[in-house]
Amino acid sequence: MRTRPLKVALLGCGVVGSEVARIMTTHADDLAARIGAPLELAGVAVRRPSKVREGIDPALITTDATALVKRGDIDVVVEVIGGIEPARTLITTAFEHGASVVSANKALLAKDGTTLYDAAARHGRDLYFEAAVAGAIPLIRPLRESLAGDTVNRVLGIVNGTTNFILDRMDTAGSGYSEALDEATALGYAEADPTADVEGFDAAAKAAILAGIAFHTRVRLDDVHREGITEVTSADLASAQRMGCTVKLLAICERAADGKSVTARVHPAMIPLSHPLASVREAYNAVFVEAEAAGQLMFYGPGAGGAPTASAVLGDLVAVCRNKLNGATGPGESAYTRLPVSSMGEVVTRYHINLDVADKPGVLAQVATVFAEHGVSIDTVRQKGKDGEASLVVVTHRAADAALSGTVEALRKLDTVRGVASIMRVEGE
Amino acid sequence: MRTRPLKVALLGCGVVGSEVARIMTTHADDLAARIGAPLELAGVAVRRPSKVREGIDPALITTDATALVKRGDIDVVVEVIGGIEPARTLITTAFEHGASVVSANKALLAKDGTTLYDAAARHGRDLYFEAAVAGAIPLIRPLRESLAGDTVNRVLGIVNGTTNFILDRMDTAGSGYSEALDEATALGYAEADPTADVEGFDAAAKAAILAGIAFHTRVRLDDVHREGITEVTSADLASAQRMGCTVKLLAICERAADGKSVTARVHPAMIPLSHPLASVREAYNAVFVEAEAAGQLMFYGPGAGGAPTASAVLGDLVAVCRNKLNGATGPGESAYTRLPVSSMGEVVTRYHINLDVADKPGVLAQVATVFAEHGVSIDTVRQKGKDGEASLVVVTHRAADAALSGTVEALRKLDTVRGVASIMRVEGE
Repeated sequence: MRTRPLKVALLGCGVVGSEVARIMTTHADDLAARIGAPLELAGVAVRRPSKVREGIDPALITTDATALVKRGDIDVVVEVIGGIEPARTLITTAFEHGASVVSANKALLAKDGTTLYDAAARHGRDLYFEAAVAGAIPLIRPLRESLAGDTVNRVLGIVNGTTNFILDRMDTAGSGYSEALDEATALGYAEADPTADVEGFDAAAKAAILAGIAFHTRVRLDDVHREGITEVTSADLASAQRMGCTVKLLAICERAADGKSVTARVHPAMIPLSHPLASVREAYNAVFVEAEAAGQLMFYGPGAGGAPTASAVLGDLVAVCRNKLNGATGPGESAYTRLPVSSMGEVVTRYHINLDVADKPGVLAQVATVFAEHGVSIDTVRQKGKDGEASLVVVTHRAADAALSGTVEALRKLDTVRGVASIMRVEGE
Repeated sequence: MRTRPLKVALLGCGVVGSEVARIMTTHADDLAARIGAPLELAGVAVRRPSKVREGIDPALITTDATALVKRGDIDVVVEVIGGIEPARTLITTAFEHGASVVSANKALLAKDGTTLYDAAARHGRDLYFEAAVAGAIPLIRPLRESLAGDTVNRVLGIVNGTTNFILDRMDTAGSGYSEALDEATALGYAEADPTADVEGFDAAAKAAILAGIAFHTRVRLDDVHREGITEVTSADLASAQRMGCTVKLLAICERAADGKSVTARVHPAMIPLSHPLASVREAYNAVFVEAEAAGQLMFYGPGAGGAPTASAVLGDLVAVCRNKLNGATGPGESAYTRLPVSSMGEVVTRYHINLDVADKPGVLAQVATVFAEHGVSIDTVRQKGKDGEASLVVVTHRAADAALSGTVEALRKLDTVRGVASIMRVEGE
């Protein structure tokens, strides 16, 4: 074993960073044996230097992250600051000054992964980011490496723990959305401002990253269709239960049937209780992958939290260090297919539509005509009357999302349709 | 991209090998793009050269596997023959003659992995074997690489599809063992001679491989305690159901509580229906991993079959080829902890014991005394009388397996105990 240590600079020392530093100390011998050289924590860049950080030598603490990544003797920079800037500049600067990078920054990778990949490749460095998607669950490495000889057709995942906790509470405890959100906040599963989670921004960033890797193409954050869970009601959960389904916020990345384009989207959807993702409870994450030869695989585990995220960061750190000792780099960006990303309108899916309609003869015929005119075939209809009002629950066969949303627009214009109570896609069948 | 191809020799062209060859041809462009150089199938060693093999140039077929691996121009040998010899000699010969090896040979790796690892390291070659455990499910790479910065404490897996299919049928259809085995055979899930599967040999080989990798130590096949499923009865499944459990053949690798030794075992066990492994149906495989920082992870998918196994082989092939182009090798054996493997007697577990006893006063007191004398604490007892005969169902608290089996031995000697109808361990709580 080499005795000269590999030097690690840590950018950020919050929940994840402090756990990374702790494990680097407590498991130093294991890490050294697995890498083939000891690790040395060479510097820790923080915003609040006065905060006491147990187990970290105060002499290592600095507020000057730029100077740290420019030192020139750093082997690996671990970036756990999050956000776009200064993280992006710090990472590219690190590459320029001889370091490889391990990052947990999903927002930056989804928004500007290409810049980072290019910079890493130009300077011959590694950029690893297992922790950016689904915390400790090994996902990036299986997709990039284990399935490198296979053709992935579909990735269907629960990649946001906050929203899964909320929907699970709505499903199992019958809570309303606000009540479930309050509970998530009280338990620390939701942040004070839950927008990034409940509006699907976090899941969309992960979908962009997963789609790019799964299909060997570039998928930008803007390419991802995004709907959050704020409009999901307890009535939706009840409807789902009547259909033998539950509601999950899904990140769905698909290759088109002709193989010539891909799509990426995040939205709440009904999935059958028999689907393995339906039983993913509380804040757990799980990702279902369908590949041509491998068939259906699922990866399950904690999607967030300091220790699980640190586990993913450290796995990458070991890999990057081994590469460094080998004088090599791991797999970089693979975007050779250049498959275009189609819009949501081209996605083929099913709708579950709940209509409030006038309770008089001929309404179903009118509604059915609208579906037929838009080329959308109906799977089942359930009609329920009550005091001059009635509701129609329509579940469609698979059709292009544009045809389905066109149908709904036309339905809204019918005199006999008083309102569209809810629309939800049905997936995983 | 390099235009000179990397040469691949295929040893074996059965269900898996023919699928590997097929994908190498149909997906040649994808594989080339992902590797950075094209692949060339340079030779295929088979036993029956006269058999027509669609899509494979007959000029590549040879019966002389030794000459093929000795050619000197082969970059990677893919070994999908199985069995100990000639596979072992062919693999070591391949290393000597400049090739790295991708193998799906669980029996050989479990029996003599050390010889292979040593030979690979001595010659600076790669030995990859994702396909040896749980088919297409990425498991070896996540354990070796993704969790390289973490400490794995437990691996609990359903790693044999045949036995899972049989136990699932016994559970859901109420079939007896023989009936379920017949069905498995008819559907092609069980071989004509099912011994390797139903007696747990296959699962034990996988347990040895998983334990070695998870705990960074050497675990030989002989170190693995093995019990098959041939003694499992429909009464056992019924008992399990009454406890809110099902029965699975589990491969269990554990680090002792003091961290100073490990154990590996394969046996049928009751697990609670709430455990993610309980819902793994039919011939699917799944492996549950508990790590210090990552928490609980699960990997799920098809554990066998030509295409899924080929997917794992090809993922390894891509990785090994990338390493070759990098002039490097991937992670080799990691056995630095040298943790000893304890015997089954030292495993701490729980027993579910079904006793046929005389239906008279004082029996329970006698039985309870035997448990107390062996230091085994009872969790629950259920007593059922019928016509002078009675049964006692005892579920213990956690205790060393030696104490539990000692208790059972002593119970057998009691006059009032007519027989021990069944004993099953309870896991996953």
